[in-house]
Amino acid sequence: MAVQKILYDCDPGHDDAVALMLAAGSPELELLGVTIVAGNQTLDNTGRNACHVLQWLGREEIPVYTGCERPMVRDRVTAGDIHGETGLDGPVFPPLRKRPEPEHAVRFLVRTLMSSQGDVTVVTSGPMTNLAMALRMEPAAAEKIRRIVLMGGSYTNGNVTPAAEFNILADPEAAHVCFTAGRPVTMIGLDVTRKVLCYPEIVERMARADTCASRLFVDLMGHFCRTQKEVFGWEGGPLHDPVTIASLLDPALVVTKPMNVRIDLSHGESYGRTNCDAFGYLGLPATADVAVDIDVPRFWDIIETGLRRYSETGKQA
Amino acid sequence: MAVQKILYDCDPGHDDAVALMLAAGSPELELLGVTIVAGNQTLDNTGRNACHVLQWLGREEIPVYTGCERPMVRDRVTAGDIHGETGLDGPVFPPLRKRPEPEHAVRFLVRTLMSSQGDVTVVTSGPMTNLAMALRMEPAAAEKIRRIVLMGGSYTNGNVTPAAEFNILADPEAAHVCFTAGRPVTMIGLDVTRKVLCYPEIVERMARADTCASRLFVDLMGHFCRTQKEVFGWEGGPLHDPVTIASLLDPALVVTKPMNVRIDLSHGESYGRTNCDAFGYLGLPATADVAVDIDVPRFWDIIETGLRRYSETGKQA
Amino acid sequence: MAVQKILYDCDPGHDDAVALMLAAGSPELELLGVTIVAGNQTLDNTGRNACHVLQWLGREEIPVYTGCERPMVRDRVTAGDIHGETGLDGPVFPPLRKRPEPEHAVRFLVRTLMSSQGDVTVVTSGPMTNLAMALRMEPAAAEKIRRIVLMGGSYTNGNVTPAAEFNILADPEAAHVCFTAGRPVTMIGLDVTRKVLCYPEIVERMARADTCASRLFVDLMGHFCRTQKEVFGWEGGPLHDPVTIASLLDPALVVTKPMNVRIDLSHGESYGRTNCDAFGYLGLPATADVAVDIDVPRFWDIIETGLRRYSETGKQA
Amino acid sequence: MAVQKILYDCDPGHDDAVALMLAAGSPELELLGVTIVAGNQTLDNTGRNACHVLQWLGREEIPVYTGCERPMVRDRVTAGDIHGETGLDGPVFPPLRKRPEPEHAVRFLVRTLMSSQGDVTVVTSGPMTNLAMALRMEPAAAEKIRRIVLMGGSYTNGNVTPAAEFNILADPEAAHVCFTAGRPVTMIGLDVTRKVLCYPEIVERMARADTCASRLFVDLMGHFCRTQKEVFGWEGGPLHDPVTIASLLDPALVVTKPMNVRIDLSHGESYGRTNCDAFGYLGLPATADVAVDIDVPRFWDIIETGLRRYSETGKQA
Repeated sequence: MAVQKILYDCDPGHDDAVALMLAAGSPELELLGVTIVAGNQTLDNTGRNACHVLQWLGREEIPVYTGCERPMVRDRVTAGDIHGETGLDGPVFPPLRKRPEPEHAVRFLVRTLMSSQGDVTVVTSGPMTNLAMALRMEPAAAEKIRRIVLMGGSYTNGNVTPAAEFNILADPEAAHVCFTAGRPVTMIGLDVTRKVLCYPEIVERMARADTCASRLFVDLMGHFCRTQKEVFGWEGGPLHDPVTIASLLDPALVVTKPMNVRIDLSHGESYGRTNCDAFGYLGLPATADVAVDIDVPRFWDIIETGLRRYSETGKQA
Repeated sequence: MAVQKILYDCDPGHDDAVALMLAAGSPELELLGVTIVAGNQTLDNTGRNACHVLQWLGREEIPVYTGCERPMVRDRVTAGDIHGETGLDGPVFPPLRKRPEPEHAVRFLVRTLMSSQGDVTVVTSGPMTNLAMALRMEPAAAEKIRRIVLMGGSYTNGNVTPAAEFNILADPEAAHVCFTAGRPVTMIGLDVTRKVLCYPEIVERMARADTCASRLFVDLMGHFCRTQKEVFGWEGGPLHDPVTIASLLDPALVVTKPMNVRIDLSHGESYGRTNCDAFGYLGLPATADVAVDIDVPRFWDIIETGLRRYSETGKQA
Repeated sequence: MAVQKILYDCDPGHDDAVALMLAAGSPELELLGVTIVAGNQTLDNTGRNACHVLQWLGREEIPVYTGCERPMVRDRVTAGDIHGETGLDGPVFPPLRKRPEPEHAVRFLVRTLMSSQGDVTVVTSGPMTNLAMALRMEPAAAEKIRRIVLMGGSYTNGNVTPAAEFNILADPEAAHVCFTAGRPVTMIGLDVTRKVLCYPEIVERMARADTCASRLFVDLMGHFCRTQKEVFGWEGGPLHDPVTIASLLDPALVVTKPMNVRIDLSHGESYGRTNCDAFGYLGLPATADVAVDIDVPRFWDIIETGLRRYSETGKQA
Repeated sequence: MAVQKILYDCDPGHDDAVALMLAAGSPELELLGVTIVAGNQTLDNTGRNACHVLQWLGREEIPVYTGCERPMVRDRVTAGDIHGETGLDGPVFPPLRKRPEPEHAVRFLVRTLMSSQGDVTVVTSGPMTNLAMALRMEPAAAEKIRRIVLMGGSYTNGNVTPAAEFNILADPEAAHVCFTAGRPVTMIGLDVTRKVLCYPEIVERMARADTCASRLFVDLMGHFCRTQKEVFGWEGGPLHDPVTIASLLDPALVVTKPMNVRIDLSHGESYGRTNCDAFGYLGLPATADVAVDIDVPRFWDIIETGLRRYSETGKQA
């Protein structure tokens, strides 16, 4: 399989950080840049967090671009209760040298897509604001996207309201813009990411890898699993975001089903719900491949392989 | 356990017919009356179907009242593809003697509740129009309801749209009125009724009972399972409605969880969704007990017992 | 012109009371009954107010039926700030002998319409709950309505929210049911009723009639104009409701224009707005005759004539 | 009065073209740039039209920036029936030399505002997409805006649907972003612009100015008035957009009232309505100054003065 060019848009966030480790360390992927959105925390925090992770991993050459501080239309929502005050509570990082690039993430997305050969996959694991803004700034950029792979939504129920998942609810209008862009969309929602629970034995297993990446993983998961337990009473925290990157590394990891998907923009009870027509009731054409199952052991193998690819000292092997 | 007084509101419909057999034949229940609503078919059809079933079973003394032909606010929806032109295609019934009573179902509900001691359970397995209209005609009737047990809704996804289940979607405003009436509500939704699949071996098992009721069951299920297969491609048809009555006969049959439930009245994508806060995200008080699991073998035992309680010739044993 | 049979549904309310005087005292109208809804005040208050007015006027033989205490779907709204604690603050009435009939207003509407020759005009000047409930209880009743004349709505802006007028906002779903019943609808909205301002000189003019009706008018308007001034800062209070009855007495009083009218049921910003397509932008068929102008001097002549038709002592002349 | 710095965002369009003549020719205004949005026609057309007008007027040094081709969230709407295939049917322009700048209008808006001293007024007379996108790309730009003056909305009724005016309906979400940006907003809606009707005698009056600008005005209005008559049956076409620029030149031209304004984002019947609380019913703080009256003769004087400021040959006097 040829190396896949990707743009990764995220709001780190503990699970984004793991996804970022995987994306930055996998030779199967060419990570053209990391774009940052507010979501799990404010833009200042999520941008700084991405820089911390890349510096820690010795991948400072990967550029980080900060984008939108606010959703397209609705008021801002954050998730401080899960990810803490910094958005990445837990690890203690060394002083930060790496800085985001001066260019706006939306402009970087437009520029990179427009100058590409139509071979770039856009992965998002936060609110889809940056990509949606890019598509509205330059509609021709849509045709340059190979596919969109996102963590977000659910075809059953949400995790912020009974109807809606956080990334979609945080900017439903942006999600609508991306889902209707006319490009292949793979939606990896809570239906499968909820199955990827990081239990203590997983943390122990990864600890044995003993690389800079695995040590960061252990610190991140310590905090993440603790807050999941405090907030929801769950033993293992769901590692939502890395499923996106892992699914690029192994196309067989996630089982998907083509469905018509429409985002609820009603501003009512169900605002932000991804209405996925799993059974074809509406008789409308499928608009996304929706993840319906995942091979969980294989997922952890991919994570372990990813962590082991880093060296002990913070330089990629 | 004392005999439970019940009012049963339905729109037969194959699965309503099975529920009716169970309700009319169980000495644990005192069936005060059957009220009829349009839903699976038009009011003329659903009323006639209820009379056919009761006459067939030799229970003509149970009064049938027809109610609302149309939902409270929205346009009419029917489900002719599943239940056929009559709403009860399959069995061949003898000429119909039994007639609905002249009193309107809504008036009967108000009168019966207002003259009761607050000990009447209202069971609905169709659109909730009749009960909602009764509550709006006479708000004091709400206090006289012991509890409401309904087949309808889902805390995951629907069966007409990705968001909504048929009974709720057919009259979301009525459901809202009933759910906010201030009385205990048990919502038995698709999440559990989808598990009660009537496979051919179930039909064979019930056929061996060889009563008037079991013969009717066999004829009904023959048609029902055939259309479920044609329309959805499923082998066994889900027997939604009888779970309501069965849950009264055996309180341990269904596992419920208290949840805050709000009906989507937005007239948008998710119109008619029962937003059930299964995980308490919203921090709002629980407003209904929502069925989350069912003991399926026990359910079929209850059905078999119910069918065997009838005699061979159409008179209750 | 033949005597017009009317059913008058109202929620008195100062301006309803004036409309009731006009309806009960005009030989051109046969007032078959007065049905009462909650609106300006609770049902207890509005029912008692109608009885007070009819008793005061010596028209106790006109039956009063109380109906729905609550709107069909939404939560209750009242207008205590304008009409006071009783809904008819101002006049001092003698002890009340007259009582509402035991029959429910909705049932009375259904019964009267179904036994009619299709020659009954239904006039509403409150939330349209009773009529809508009647139409849903017995859909065949719609065909028996000659026409519906209502005070409510606006094709410009509202008087409770920027979008909605009180009578419609108090039960938008009921208005939707009535507007889509397939019968001729004349909507008399704020656009014209706001022009009918009861200034002090109007009160003085009516006082000179010196009948039981004019004395009641003076007492009612004293309170009504005072609160309009206190709440809105307006000198003369708009006498919304009597325009309905007056328009029956003189078809030339109000200029109407056929428009497509749709009620906003979105539960959002504009909930309850009567979207009237005055300029035909939508290219949809007209569904109501919407009042666009009124001959104000003529209106006051009709009122004066109406008040003078009563005797001094409370018996109709 | 000091010279006012302005950014003018528009979608020419006949009435935008007149506004542009006024903005480009008035020494009281410093026109920093013209930004272009799709609306009355597609972006290609509206951009070309702005260049045609400025070239015709000899003002090629004023830069034109094209921006968003599509609304932020909703599907595209255009108004080809009024403005014709080019969006500026009527005049015959010489071959076009002037080109839009390569920079994106949204980026230009952000850059210009961020480098300003907080003294720039943003005027919009089309869908508010460009300004809203700028505010979302760089939230800090909001603080740099002196005030926003827009043609759009209505506090009575719309001109595309009964609820909504074209510029707002074409991008309701963008309007919401701009109205909630925390800066002073002057909304000049249909309530006043409908009063500015360009009758044939107005066209004759302007023709007598005999400048390059007045000749263009005559050609534009010839087409505009003809289509208004064909589409709506109106004798004089309403010259909506120039009221914005004229109101900057003469602050006494338009009477405004502070109101709470909220945009209907419901995607239902009233989508895009500007709910203006003219009477303070909601008790919420005012968020915009809404135009409620206009001195029409004064408006035409301003237009005539503006047209006369140009020379005969297409160079500003």
